[in-house]
Amino acid sequence: MNGADALCDTLLANDVDVCFANPGTSEMHFVAALDRKPEMRCVLGLFEGVVTGAADGYARMTGRPAATLLHTGPGLANGLANLHNARRARVPMINVVGDHASYHLPFDAPLTTDIDGLAAPMSNWVCRISGPVDVAPATEAAYRASLVPAGIATLILPADAAWGDAEAVPRNKVVLPAPPAVPTDRVREIADAIRSAPGRAGILVSGAAAQPDGLEIAGQIAAARNVRLFGEVAVARMARGVGRVAPTRIPYPIDAAIEVLSDIDVLILVGATEPVAFFAYPGKPGRLVHNDCRVLALAKHGEDLEGALDALRDELGVKRTQSPLRSSAMPDEPVLTGELTDDAIAVMVARKLPENAIVCDEAITSARRFFALSEFAAPHDFLMTTGGAIGIGIPLTTGAAIACPDRKVFNLQADGSAMYTLQGLWTQARENLDVVTIIFSNRTYAVLHTEMQKVGVGEIGENARRMLDLDQPSLDWVSIAQGMGVEAARASTCEQFDDLLDSVLKRRGPFLIEAVI
Amino acid sequence: MNGADALCDTLLANDVDVCFANPGTSEMHFVAALDRKPEMRCVLGLFEGVVTGAADGYARMTGRPAATLLHTGPGLANGLANLHNARRARVPMINVVGDHASYHLPFDAPLTTDIDGLAAPMSNWVCRISGPVDVAPATEAAYRASLVPAGIATLILPADAAWGDAEAVPRNKVVLPAPPAVPTDRVREIADAIRSAPGRAGILVSGAAAQPDGLEIAGQIAAARNVRLFGEVAVARMARGVGRVAPTRIPYPIDAAIEVLSDIDVLILVGATEPVAFFAYPGKPGRLVHNDCRVLALAKHGEDLEGALDALRDELGVKRTQSPLRSSAMPDEPVLTGELTDDAIAVMVARKLPENAIVCDEAITSARRFFALSEFAAPHDFLMTTGGAIGIGIPLTTGAAIACPDRKVFNLQADGSAMYTLQGLWTQARENLDVVTIIFSNRTYAVLHTEMQKVGVGEIGENARRMLDLDQPSLDWVSIAQGMGVEAARASTCEQFDDLLDSVLKRRGPFLIEAVI
Repeated sequence: MNGADALCDTLLANDVDVCFANPGTSEMHFVAALDRKPEMRCVLGLFEGVVTGAADGYARMTGRPAATLLHTGPGLANGLANLHNARRARVPMINVVGDHASYHLPFDAPLTTDIDGLAAPMSNWVCRISGPVDVAPATEAAYRASLVPAGIATLILPADAAWGDAEAVPRNKVVLPAPPAVPTDRVREIADAIRSAPGRAGILVSGAAAQPDGLEIAGQIAAARNVRLFGEVAVARMARGVGRVAPTRIPYPIDAAIEVLSDIDVLILVGATEPVAFFAYPGKPGRLVHNDCRVLALAKHGEDLEGALDALRDELGVKRTQSPLRSSAMPDEPVLTGELTDDAIAVMVARKLPENAIVCDEAITSARRFFALSEFAAPHDFLMTTGGAIGIGIPLTTGAAIACPDRKVFNLQADGSAMYTLQGLWTQARENLDVVTIIFSNRTYAVLHTEMQKVGVGEIGENARRMLDLDQPSLDWVSIAQGMGVEAARASTCEQFDDLLDSVLKRRGPFLIEAVI
Repeated sequence: MNGADALCDTLLANDVDVCFANPGTSEMHFVAALDRKPEMRCVLGLFEGVVTGAADGYARMTGRPAATLLHTGPGLANGLANLHNARRARVPMINVVGDHASYHLPFDAPLTTDIDGLAAPMSNWVCRISGPVDVAPATEAAYRASLVPAGIATLILPADAAWGDAEAVPRNKVVLPAPPAVPTDRVREIADAIRSAPGRAGILVSGAAAQPDGLEIAGQIAAARNVRLFGEVAVARMARGVGRVAPTRIPYPIDAAIEVLSDIDVLILVGATEPVAFFAYPGKPGRLVHNDCRVLALAKHGEDLEGALDALRDELGVKRTQSPLRSSAMPDEPVLTGELTDDAIAVMVARKLPENAIVCDEAITSARRFFALSEFAAPHDFLMTTGGAIGIGIPLTTGAAIACPDRKVFNLQADGSAMYTLQGLWTQARENLDVVTIIFSNRTYAVLHTEMQKVGVGEIGENARRMLDLDQPSLDWVSIAQGMGVEAARASTCEQFDDLLDSVLKRRGPFLIEAVI
């Protein structure tokens, strides 16, 4: 077998059986090897940002790494923005980046680039494979690096390592250690801190702590010991909906974020890092908690988050039968009519959301209302951009739908962000994924108008307007989607939108709604 | 004035008056400053690959740097693939990459990235601005770095450097040194080498040496001293057409490239580097010249290429009145009819090309015929991808059209590559650029099918086929283009294509022809 075969076999031996790919010339041996393994599902993306964003969505929904196949430095570069988001989402991923044959690099051929240098900023682990017999052990190391703790592992595969003879040594599945438990004295210290600040302690959840079982325990502690629950500004994945415990998400606008945390004197982190301002603003702080707030990590990413919450519950003497505060059903609201607005879309989607859906929010300013309503909707998983790099919604929902073929996926998608990785619509069409993309078509980078005001610009002129608005001409999302093989329709009124929502709930397969707001 | 104003003023003082932009939150002060300078032309791209590719096209046609405005690490990352091409094209460019305020970086906010690390592989020069008073001198240094010699200068602009008070010191235009002349003894050595290999010497031209005046001198030497003229595999810009001197372009396929150079014993480089194989193939060499060929640089990028050719002409005793071999008019060929093919498109475009057009070839496998015919077409400039990173055609022609509003621009565009940066069509619509995009719609990465054969894979299976072909569903380029505001039509026969060509030649503004082949 050659190195490329060894790579495929090692991935498959460890149940890495989905490969999001955009191959090029230097990966032809890897493509040939994949061709010999029908058990590997290969999903083509027509741009690498689709590939890496889809692998992120897949990992968020399965907890397992997908492989990506990227073509040399430029192919990796095109995937970096969504790798950045994935790294911030703390998901597992194994990138395979093809490179020239090692002996060809000194010629500095046109495609030669510093792949190691490009990979480092957005990877947790980088390895250049040294030769064909190194392929299998390096791939095992990448698998381990992608999961202990979860992160981005990037393997650089020189063409001669792929085409050279690899020893066919049979290898077992890699055995991974269990996530380490949290030390008892740390749990005790944190329980003391919570007791010391009655009504003024908060728990910030992430990762497994934001999944149903973790939220349940956190909710029990919150109910029994008067502790507030928070979610991160940028949520990688959170279980939401009726019957679940609903943390308050820390808001993106800095003043609102500071306000939400203003009466917290003890903030306990469970899988999260300390919340900070998304951007710096003149005269505003970078930390969001007040200066006297104690910030303590109960458990870090990679540790046993649910076990840590469990231990804390015991340490605080909270009964396992304690009832948490659970979300109730959506309050009755009047049927919405007339002109379509971003808030109206959020209400209608939340109201009609089918059970066990997956909802991705990349609507930036437009879908803020949705998260607030999501606790009242049918139980679902909520995903969003984690690193602030726009262009993740279409890829993320593509990967989530590959991971969960039986769940309906909704993408609340800003138009400006959608343009970054619109090529993913084609992959949704090809794979017949059950994704409903709702474009919030406001024809502007709305967030930037807000930010311009924050920096003190009142009236904006022609140069700024032309950099902040997506008009002249307006994008016709129905045409764009249809051009990529995705059925689509437009709604400008609440009635039209509601009708479209009803019809997409009765069908399967990709559909795009251009919501003109 | 603040730092952002100082940046704009310094750019404008040096005639950098076009800014291709995709701004974000951390660049709001820069956007506000641009808004105060109506003399700066700001061109919005809806994806950063469009921004950097357009700046490349602008630079290739003007020889001057445009500024780009990119939002933090992910924004830069999205632009890197086309920066790689621009670096390989050896064009001037000044990237302005916004970053968090310097004091915000330690908080590791979600968008925090190693911008310096990301910029280095695709930049010739990188500078992080240290504060508001450093903005003007750093921008001057960037301007200098972008032109002496031409290359990619990347300025990292922390938000606090943009919004802080800069001293309003009046500054003059930066005075740049003239390109250094080539030493006489080098010219003499090269003249001797040419004389030593009668009929077996070649000159490989690039940069100014591939422009009309440079080609004319090279052509005089070639005619008088029996020297062969070559162009690089990847041509950044070359003057072509009737009445001009037409070098042989070194072919991309390795066997053909080796064959073309097989009888060359002395190869003289003028602005070019030694030609090497684009990729490594098992058992094939990396160098394209034979082992006994002497490769000598007459002039390097940044030196006075035309002056060097001039000196070499004198040293070889070639008269200034010597006639070079010039391209003649297109031979009469029968009118093409029936099914449309890639070769037929090349013939029809070459035949009807208007005088002084700009033609970009990113059709990879499909438009090879065009270059061979281009010497017989009306005089024009020929551009292509230089670094092998696909997705440059639409941005490059966008920038070329901004640079040359009075010239008709043709983009011979592969469908697979077009998908990478299709967002540029919207910019063509907004700016009403006179660009005709011809999509070679073969619904496959055709080059990869060839490469699969080269690595010995005969019959390909389902996994490989699904990674190499862009079908199921087919892309509808007419819908996609119309969705972005660009008029479009489809041709499946030679007659239809010829009619469309006639009609686009009578109009101005962007148009896309989906050529189904």
